[in-house]
Amino acid sequence: MAEKTNLGRFFEDYTVGQVIRHAVPRTIKMGERALYHALYPARHALYSSDQFAQDCGLPFSPLDDLIAFHVVFGKTVPDISLNAVANLGYAEGRWHHPVWPGDTIRSESEVIGVKQNSNGKTGVVWVRSRGLNQHDEVVLDYVRWVMVRKRDVDAPAPKAVVPELAEVVPASDLKIPKGLDFTNYDFTLAGEPHRWGDYEVGETIHHVDGVTVEEAEHMLATRLWQNTAKVHFDAWAREDRKRLIYGGHVISMARALSFNGLANAQMIVGLNGGAHANPCHAGDTIRAWSEVLDKAETDAPGVGAIRLRLVATRSLAGGGLCKLRGEDGKYLPEVLLDLDYWALMPM
Amino acid sequence: MAEKTNLGRFFEDYTVGQVIRHAVPRTIKMGERALYHALYPARHALYSSDQFAQDCGLPFSPLDDLIAFHVVFGKTVPDISLNAVANLGYAEGRWHHPVWPGDTIRSESEVIGVKQNSNGKTGVVWVRSRGLNQHDEVVLDYVRWVMVRKRDVDAPAPKAVVPELAEVVPASDLKIPKGLDFTNYDFTLAGEPHRWGDYEVGETIHHVDGVTVEEAEHMLATRLWQNTAKVHFDAWAREDRKRLIYGGHVISMARALSFNGLANAQMIVGLNGGAHANPCHAGDTIRAWSEVLDKAETDAPGVGAIRLRLVATRSLAGGGLCKLRGEDGKYLPEVLLDLDYWALMPM
Amino acid sequence: MAEKTNLGRFFEDYTVGQVIRHAVPRTIKMGERALYHALYPARHALYSSDQFAQDCGLPFSPLDDLIAFHVVFGKTVPDISLNAVANLGYAEGRWHHPVWPGDTIRSESEVIGVKQNSNGKTGVVWVRSRGLNQHDEVVLDYVRWVMVRKRDVDAPAPKAVVPELAEVVPASDLKIPKGLDFTNYDFTLAGEPHRWGDYEVGETIHHVDGVTVEEAEHMLATRLWQNTAKVHFDAWAREDRKRLIYGGHVISMARALSFNGLANAQMIVGLNGGAHANPCHAGDTIRAWSEVLDKAETDAPGVGAIRLRLVATRSLAGGGLCKLRGEDGKYLPEVLLDLDYWALMPM
Repeated sequence: MAEKTNLGRFFEDYTVGQVIRHAVPRTIKMGERALYHALYPARHALYSSDQFAQDCGLPFSPLDDLIAFHVVFGKTVPDISLNAVANLGYAEGRWHHPVWPGDTIRSESEVIGVKQNSNGKTGVVWVRSRGLNQHDEVVLDYVRWVMVRKRDVDAPAPKAVVPELAEVVPASDLKIPKGLDFTNYDFTLAGEPHRWGDYEVGETIHHVDGVTVEEAEHMLATRLWQNTAKVHFDAWAREDRKRLIYGGHVISMARALSFNGLANAQMIVGLNGGAHANPCHAGDTIRAWSEVLDKAETDAPGVGAIRLRLVATRSLAGGGLCKLRGEDGKYLPEVLLDLDYWALMPM
Repeated sequence: MAEKTNLGRFFEDYTVGQVIRHAVPRTIKMGERALYHALYPARHALYSSDQFAQDCGLPFSPLDDLIAFHVVFGKTVPDISLNAVANLGYAEGRWHHPVWPGDTIRSESEVIGVKQNSNGKTGVVWVRSRGLNQHDEVVLDYVRWVMVRKRDVDAPAPKAVVPELAEVVPASDLKIPKGLDFTNYDFTLAGEPHRWGDYEVGETIHHVDGVTVEEAEHMLATRLWQNTAKVHFDAWAREDRKRLIYGGHVISMARALSFNGLANAQMIVGLNGGAHANPCHAGDTIRAWSEVLDKAETDAPGVGAIRLRLVATRSLAGGGLCKLRGEDGKYLPEVLLDLDYWALMPM
Repeated sequence: MAEKTNLGRFFEDYTVGQVIRHAVPRTIKMGERALYHALYPARHALYSSDQFAQDCGLPFSPLDDLIAFHVVFGKTVPDISLNAVANLGYAEGRWHHPVWPGDTIRSESEVIGVKQNSNGKTGVVWVRSRGLNQHDEVVLDYVRWVMVRKRDVDAPAPKAVVPELAEVVPASDLKIPKGLDFTNYDFTLAGEPHRWGDYEVGETIHHVDGVTVEEAEHMLATRLWQNTAKVHFDAWAREDRKRLIYGGHVISMARALSFNGLANAQMIVGLNGGAHANPCHAGDTIRAWSEVLDKAETDAPGVGAIRLRLVATRSLAGGGLCKLRGEDGKYLPEVLLDLDYWALMPM
């Protein structure tokens, strides 16, 4: 009669080359989309209307890009980040195929790096996680690294392996959904007239709107992706008795808020990096601003790629200043998220 | 590099005859219905059971009448009421076709009246808004008028145009869903025995039940309809730091509560008028009462029309008194909503 | 002009042999499942993935076992427990057929016992409730007994009829879903390696995780099942001004939490008994532990039955002790639920 419950993995449990098949595949349909659109002010037309998607060359409207991300990520939590002290970063993320309503998604992760910290109590683990659909196609992959507790501080340190990661996914490596064609794009229905050519590298956009977040909402969201991290649900899990909001909730909220000014940044196809700069709690009011980091052409008709920094902040009434770091080079205390991604936009 | 974000239209931006195509069409399916039934105690059988709907001559259960209203209304918000000081009224609303799961709805509004207020700072704008499905059929239209801020108080007043609006949609103009037939109506499954003939003009019904509303719920609802008005989401948007609950949330809550006593008022087909008498906030307990205003026969087999006043109130424990206005003729402070609509009921 | 609203039935309104057809049939689809998985940390793979269900011999993933329970139960509330003082117990519950997305469920109850209490003010009513699908197949039935107020304390007591109820549903009477076959069960995808043979009668499992519950969540859940009991929604319904959380919300939360240690207890097929030991309110942190009460083989390939006691508790930070009753034999004050059920597990 062995102990039946899962207390999560510790630093010693990871070795480079190890592949972990994560549990609980998930069939996702339109119910998940309805919830996503109730949880976030998501309005990108391609993810809202079958007709609009068809006019852009797709068979119908796919599930939101970040639904794919959350579902894949959520499955990794019990094996990767249940005992994580911190979620340190993302890199080399790519959306390979849209996720369609009815698809069944499962996840697996390969350990690609380990490095014990000098304090001897924790270490950093790098994994490349993949989401696969029922046809065994990769729909999304990305690298994530987390700081994980050691079970036994006296366990010997493994040989340090630190993967070399691209700072940016090259535009030429982005996958464009099959059939995507923006040549007949309806800017009125999409909500804004600004096309790819209207954005300049270095331009910042303050997205105007804000949402004050509630405990019930972030827990609904986090559970929907079958993310089981205790700190999001159990008010007794942390000494401050505050539930921590899943970083992905902040990502989705900020991305949805960015509609106002980036309504035509329709599909996220690359994740270059990301930092959850400060914790977010219920009662915080999330706002967002973006910076255009780069632009690139693609082979798809009428489709440009735009590289954006998406910054989520909290509780700045009015706001309007697009500031990220203080004079010390550190993130300002009101910054929650600094995300670097590629999106597709009509040219 | 133009300013990219939308700060909404001001009074000067509206001219009579102007047609505004609103952004972000929406494909609605059963996920939205599941959420609607989680957000409101909706129990009208025609919107709950495919079988019941088929026994009433429909192919299957349509989406709730007020889902159609909220989806159409939500799309108009960024163009019509983002800078509205007040939502003044509704008139001439008709449901032309049921909205079926899978339909894609878009909205457009025609400006039919403008009148600057004597203070010179605001004006009233009248629009006729229409929801259209993927077959370009009008599923719903209604007139709404709002008070909107001027951008520039020194801008000259436009020529005042005040539309003539019907006080009541004539019963003969109501559209009955194709095939609707109440001759085999199952009153037991529907939940109450009272038929059209059992209601008398002037009769009032206190609907007994109450719901204490929460921030998370009204925000989920309002976002689901892609309504972007800041005051519903951003605790910093108003000086009192209170989020205002979308008036449509109160409408849907009161309509659902009216099941107890009006279980057979199955389908809303006409909106004669409505006033959001006082603001609603999280923590308020919403109750409802109705008054029978009129009755009419229809051409459809077994189908009668009933004109109802639906009043939502707040925080009256027990309640039971059906009072609307004080001795000064003004709405009582506990009245949230005074809605005048036509519904279809078995004869 | 009769009184139109339903104030619920009182003890005098029930007679043994009476069959009550409950109102408002309900078509349930994937939207309800998405919400269920947002409301509870539900991760049992059979209810998460069409592919996993197909690998277990089913045509696709059925709706969660407890969705069937809540939908059937919710319909009984207006007729059985609107004036109930207490929900006293359950017995002889069986899941006869899975509920598939698209099924339309209705409920009916037969009164099988009545007994006035010695105080003359209340009485106990026993009903056998059945849920039926659109093919008139029973999908679920169970006995429930409730304490109900008398309308008139001077009304004469009816002849007491107390039904004889089985303490446990015999394993041989459990219905196994047609086609179910666990011989190719994928334990990695299911999330845990423990099979039927690994569990011993008498073994207890503390499920580690906890969820702090919110008002918005339990109201969304309770409304989704069209359960109309006032105490769950109306903060003014009780003298303490606290909304009471629907006991079924606690059942679903505890069942979902039991995944950690019982990931392979895939399908609930029998309900032997249950007590809602203490009330649950928003702010409570729900935790759960289980005890293996019995085991039995079944005729289905690779499928074993396991009888489990599922106990939900509140606010025990850390927890870990599996205690049920105090020295006085009464439930400990932190115990919310004591449920006795049969589940199916791979052998």
